Amino acid sequence: MSVLATGDPTGLHRVLDQEVVLPQAARRLDTRRELWPDEVRVRVETLNLDAASFRQLEEKHSVGGRPDGDAVRREVLEIVAARGKMQNPVTGSGGMLIGTVEEVGPESGLGLRVGDHVATLVSLSLTPLVIEDGLERWDGTHERIPADGYAILFGRSIAAKIPDDLPADLSLSVMDVCGAPALTARVVGQYDAPVVAVVGAAGKSGSLSLAAARREGASRTVGVVPHEAEADLLREAGLADAVVVADARDPVALRDAVASTGSLADITVVCVDVPGCEGGAILATADRGTVIFFSMATSFSAAALGAEGLAADVTMLVGNGYTPGHAAYAMELLRDSDGVRRLFDRRL
Amino acid sequence: MSVLATGDPTGLHRVLDQEVVLPQAARRLDTRRELWPDEVRVRVETLNLDAASFRQLEEKHSVGGRPDGDAVRREVLEIVAARGKMQNPVTGSGGMLIGTVEEVGPESGLGLRVGDHVATLVSLSLTPLVIEDGLERWDGTHERIPADGYAILFGRSIAAKIPDDLPADLSLSVMDVCGAPALTARVVGQYDAPVVAVVGAAGKSGSLSLAAARREGASRTVGVVPHEAEADLLREAGLADAVVVADARDPVALRDAVASTGSLADITVVCVDVPGCEGGAILATADRGTVIFFSMATSFSAAALGAEGLAADVTMLVGNGYTPGHAAYAMELLRDSDGVRRLFDRRL
Repeated sequence: MSVLATGDPTGLHRVLDQEVVLPQAARRLDTRRELWPDEVRVRVETLNLDAASFRQLEEKHSVGGRPDGDAVRREVLEIVAARGKMQNPVTGSGGMLIGTVEEVGPESGLGLRVGDHVATLVSLSLTPLVIEDGLERWDGTHERIPADGYAILFGRSIAAKIPDDLPADLSLSVMDVCGAPALTARVVGQYDAPVVAVVGAAGKSGSLSLAAARREGASRTVGVVPHEAEADLLREAGLADAVVVADARDPVALRDAVASTGSLADITVVCVDVPGCEGGAILATADRGTVIFFSMATSFSAAALGAEGLAADVTMLVGNGYTPGHAAYAMELLRDSDGVRRLFDRRL
Repeated sequence: MSVLATGDPTGLHRVLDQEVVLPQAARRLDTRRELWPDEVRVRVETLNLDAASFRQLEEKHSVGGRPDGDAVRREVLEIVAARGKMQNPVTGSGGMLIGTVEEVGPESGLGLRVGDHVATLVSLSLTPLVIEDGLERWDGTHERIPADGYAILFGRSIAAKIPDDLPADLSLSVMDVCGAPALTARVVGQYDAPVVAVVGAAGKSGSLSLAAARREGASRTVGVVPHEAEADLLREAGLADAVVVADARDPVALRDAVASTGSLADITVVCVDVPGCEGGAILATADRGTVIFFSMATSFSAAALGAEGLAADVTMLVGNGYTPGHAAYAMELLRDSDGVRRLFDRRL
């Protein structure tokens, strides 16, 4: 495809593939510095890899159970150089970034100004990115990457200004998962005082989803965690009416753990980034209930065929990372809940 | 895992994997003839491979663009022998089967009797299956496989009696996709006179979904097809208010084709079994609209990240193949619509 004379708000003009595909599906993006009129260029400060992506890279480059950070760093550099974006070729997922607005095209409608400190809320898997420092300050053992370089935002994109009163890392961490509480809130509002179970409840998206469920009127919230240490943390945080321990990959164990709290869930929110949780989530959900899959490790066919195979009348949602107002809503939950704040702080 | 002394309605007792997983996720199932008390054994007459699965097998075993039917048949036999079920290892999908009830366990609650002519409405990807005739009557060039052997239904399963007044092939063909019109109908009912676009509208699930949308009160139905020949067929069938031609993998073309009929869709139903349709479906859908993905070729991460990347406020549903009453509803649509019937007849 030749480069379009005029830009498209979806970023199509940056796609270098032969076929017409959107930037997220593209093999390779054009990373030129010059902006189309509706674009914005951001000076990168930190990249935050999606959890499923980082886990895959870490496992791939482990020797005898020990991750090789140098190899992980090399692969990230290779991916970005080859594709013009940080999209894990196995998981398909990206992550997000934090940085400072460097230039704003005259037709940009994102409301940003040069010098604004922002987090991008669209995935790195579709964001043109150039790394200029070889990631020399990163040891490859953590998903948060200090980096220097630049990234491009399209006309139809999302970036949020980082609050001055909170550490930037904390804001990034909240915004990274802010789609989960917003969608959970919306679904809770479609039921009358539902029972809400959150799988992976002590994690970032999990704890925010629990807080959202309670605020929007859940009659009971259940937090599912993989082991006692996380159960203790979650109990201390006080976010769930019941805390249970279960391996989310074991469908019968997950069903029984949720049922043991009084009933199956009307809404089950899956926030764990390991494969194989579809069946358990479906079994843990009552008839006419809803499962929201936020994990990038979710398999579409396992979910679709799993529900059919269990004759389960449940609605299954692909967790859309975007709901209007999602970043502000998540920041509000964090500010209002000491429990959420504590769980986030210990991850920084 | 050792075999459970008592059966579980989900079929867990037939899973031979080390880990506790549901039959759909299992690598291998126990295909013994003897029934647990709540099971049913069916003598197989026809297997119907899922479209995405058959396409994958056909493409894998093509030489110079010509599918090698013998190689396809050999692989199907190998899969069933190795796994104890027909689950395509690449697509994860299965299909369904038609047969005659051979034995009913004393505690089965499916309401079946020996001699009933039935179609199973749970996927082959979780159905214990033994093939006894080497598929010698099948040339490997069509997804419908004449076969002799047996299959096992679990306590929590779904099978529908095949109507006497319709050809068995036709019934199988309708039941194979009956989840799509049932879920479409439910979602249409959640909107007030929505615009409904069906992508892959001249196909089996597509034509039934169109008929369901119209019956449940869509204000306008749009059928999207890949080329003029299918457009002619769909126009003759009279199922859609507007028929447009677009490559569903080209997101901008799909969006523009739907928009050209008057507006974007409130509900977009994806019924094409090719990968890469997520972005177009999202772009073709209006704010606060819903995309229902019925294709097994759907990528979870492409859908989730695609919507986020486009800042698209759409609800995305994993097409659950089960909704109560789905088979009866689909048969009703077929009986009531000459257009649907004609489109099905020409595929037999």
